[in-house]
Amino acid sequence: MKTYIDNALLITMDEGKIYRNGSVIVEDGRISYAGEHVAVPEDCDKVIDARGGIVMPGLINTHTHTPMTLFRGCADDLPLDVWLREHIFPLEDRLDDEAVYYGTLLACAEMIKSGTTTFADMYFMSENSAKAILLSGMNANLARCVTGTHNDYKKRLEESRSLYAAYHGAGDGRLRIDYSVHAVYTCSREAIRAVADAALEDQTGMQLHLSETMKENRDCYKQYGKSPTEIMHDMGAFSVPTNAAHCVYLSENDMDILRKNNVSIAHNPTSNLKLASGVANIKEIMEKDINVALGTDGTASNNALDMFGEMKLASLLHKGMRLDATLIRAEQALSMATVCGAKALGRAGECGALKAGYQADLIILDADAPALLPVHDPVSGVVYGGCGGHVVTSMIGGRLVMENRELLTLDMEAIKDGVSRALKRLF
Amino acid sequence: MKTYIDNALLITMDEGKIYRNGSVIVEDGRISYAGEHVAVPEDCDKVIDARGGIVMPGLINTHTHTPMTLFRGCADDLPLDVWLREHIFPLEDRLDDEAVYYGTLLACAEMIKSGTTTFADMYFMSENSAKAILLSGMNANLARCVTGTHNDYKKRLEESRSLYAAYHGAGDGRLRIDYSVHAVYTCSREAIRAVADAALEDQTGMQLHLSETMKENRDCYKQYGKSPTEIMHDMGAFSVPTNAAHCVYLSENDMDILRKNNVSIAHNPTSNLKLASGVANIKEIMEKDINVALGTDGTASNNALDMFGEMKLASLLHKGMRLDATLIRAEQALSMATVCGAKALGRAGECGALKAGYQADLIILDADAPALLPVHDPVSGVVYGGCGGHVVTSMIGGRLVMENRELLTLDMEAIKDGVSRALKRLF
Repeated sequence: MKTYIDNALLITMDEGKIYRNGSVIVEDGRISYAGEHVAVPEDCDKVIDARGGIVMPGLINTHTHTPMTLFRGCADDLPLDVWLREHIFPLEDRLDDEAVYYGTLLACAEMIKSGTTTFADMYFMSENSAKAILLSGMNANLARCVTGTHNDYKKRLEESRSLYAAYHGAGDGRLRIDYSVHAVYTCSREAIRAVADAALEDQTGMQLHLSETMKENRDCYKQYGKSPTEIMHDMGAFSVPTNAAHCVYLSENDMDILRKNNVSIAHNPTSNLKLASGVANIKEIMEKDINVALGTDGTASNNALDMFGEMKLASLLHKGMRLDATLIRAEQALSMATVCGAKALGRAGECGALKAGYQADLIILDADAPALLPVHDPVSGVVYGGCGGHVVTSMIGGRLVMENRELLTLDMEAIKDGVSRALKRLF
Repeated sequence: MKTYIDNALLITMDEGKIYRNGSVIVEDGRISYAGEHVAVPEDCDKVIDARGGIVMPGLINTHTHTPMTLFRGCADDLPLDVWLREHIFPLEDRLDDEAVYYGTLLACAEMIKSGTTTFADMYFMSENSAKAILLSGMNANLARCVTGTHNDYKKRLEESRSLYAAYHGAGDGRLRIDYSVHAVYTCSREAIRAVADAALEDQTGMQLHLSETMKENRDCYKQYGKSPTEIMHDMGAFSVPTNAAHCVYLSENDMDILRKNNVSIAHNPTSNLKLASGVANIKEIMEKDINVALGTDGTASNNALDMFGEMKLASLLHKGMRLDATLIRAEQALSMATVCGAKALGRAGECGALKAGYQADLIILDADAPALLPVHDPVSGVVYGGCGGHVVTSMIGGRLVMENRELLTLDMEAIKDGVSRALKRLF
């Protein structure tokens, strides 16, 4: 199968190369050419005309909880404690297989529609999410998130191991299984140690929440006399490639630990504002040369999965907080959502850029979207002017998952029906 | 002409009324019915099926500079001074009639596409903007912005008066002409006084920039021993309904002055972050019962005109800054972008809500947009999950300006050509 994409304003994210009149050739799921316009190959199976629109790498969302789409908008504008204990936890107790499956499908539909091609997910009942992800055709690092302060973590860890055994590498390697500990405030040190050991044994990635709130840090110091980063490090959580979400409250020493252990940070600016957690010190974190990627967090704390919104906010927020308009430039924000995301998910050199040999994960934006015109600087255009609604076509691993805004792997009517049935059981 | 809209999830913004299965009837440009489902009237000229999608008032952008679309992305991530003096000012010196006309058309296309139906504009060469706005079918409060520290303001004020004489009330009252002083740092007190007098004489609105940066305040105190608000007030700028943009640095006394004079604030959270101006104290401003509306500012400092983005950021930002997740609830953000916007532009009771007797300015969102599903709370759905790309249909004054994402009053190809020609002269 050979696909040719023409009339592309190409943002490659490969050493900053941009082609005003570019072409992309995709063969057997991989990019074989991305650069200046070339003629249509004779043996081409499909030609896509981008009509002068921006063609760029699919976006990478490194922190979310996909089944939470079911809870989108059910409890907003509340203090974190009330939100979690009175609304989210009781709902989660009522989740069933079908609910998790359709919640994940709805999330995949939203992500494809808004230009995301790869994501990291941590939740539970995850075999249902695995099935949904495989149906969608998306790339994902999926983890069964472990909590537990007593022996209760053991059953959850067993589920993680089963998930790994059943699904790691499924869908031609598009689906990978990570391990995950929820956070220091929901896991005993023993639980963290046990999950870290499993990840080390299986040589796969780790996902966790880290220093999301001031309270988390305060309680951790009170209980252990150490920061959450120090505890995670002590328990071996950083022995495998780790993707740490939030990191709003890091000390200098925490940052040094993360840097030394090649931990990637999933910056979640929307969620951190919405739940009133605060603003991560991304300036200092980046100065330490820590890999910073972007996440939306779950839809109960965002409430969208639109990485365009996340890129824009990541770029704006730190400028405004530090009163420095030169902070987090557009190309840095776009890197966070592409190449840095790939690195965070252990997929560096595989996706996140349009480059020969890379997996063909790309999106095409609407050439007629007024918000993207004129194109003085396409990267700035995408970061400051773009939104998920501008994405018209999406390809993952060489397979079209959306064309001209029509989903090709997912059936919205079936998803709406499934979600509807799930909601009747949940609410 | 009678239009009937059915299968609507209706957000009226009329005392919080929401109808899960609603209908709207529009007669001769006005809403004659908005409420629970009713049968299609026999004498109906057109039926629109919203397919269960959200139908809501068109959004109101109370601060922008439309022709600046031409500069979108040409100079980002720079300090305010460099941005303004090395990039924006020299470009503005080269603007011509055709450039302003097409720049405004591009802005109108973007605003219609992203759900805005009414806006306030302050710029210059504004007769070109007036023509573009009339062609688009949008509602606007247009002002020729006056600057001048010597007698140079007089010519500009004359242009404002001519604009008023030629265009106030044009397009069946959709286009209204305001007066405008740029700011205390670009206008002498005499200039402010003269413009304020003209506005008072013509009994129309005033648009101005107020306390956008710390430097503006500092310089104003140095020069006059007073705040920008006090100077504007002293010079009579608040004698007519006034729409003051930014207001990032207001004292308690400033707020009292604004409240007493019924000045509305155009909060521009994106622009204030992007130019590193800071974050307005919207919590305190709202506690003073000052009318707060929302603006995008120009596309050189945002860079979009998407009011969905502005609503979301307005709601998120203050939660995160004050570490209080209950601040600026979704319905408050939506009010800012609808009813409060209408009030700010002297259009209270005319638009901003779906209510019998109001002008028929409404938008229909994509019923299949995954980001808007499920609908636990439609207002939260729109504010936290919505983006401009979800808008499929837009009606202004009873006239369809977009249907199923197709612009009906504007020709994108012609706009792209005109913008292209203008850019060749400008860059």
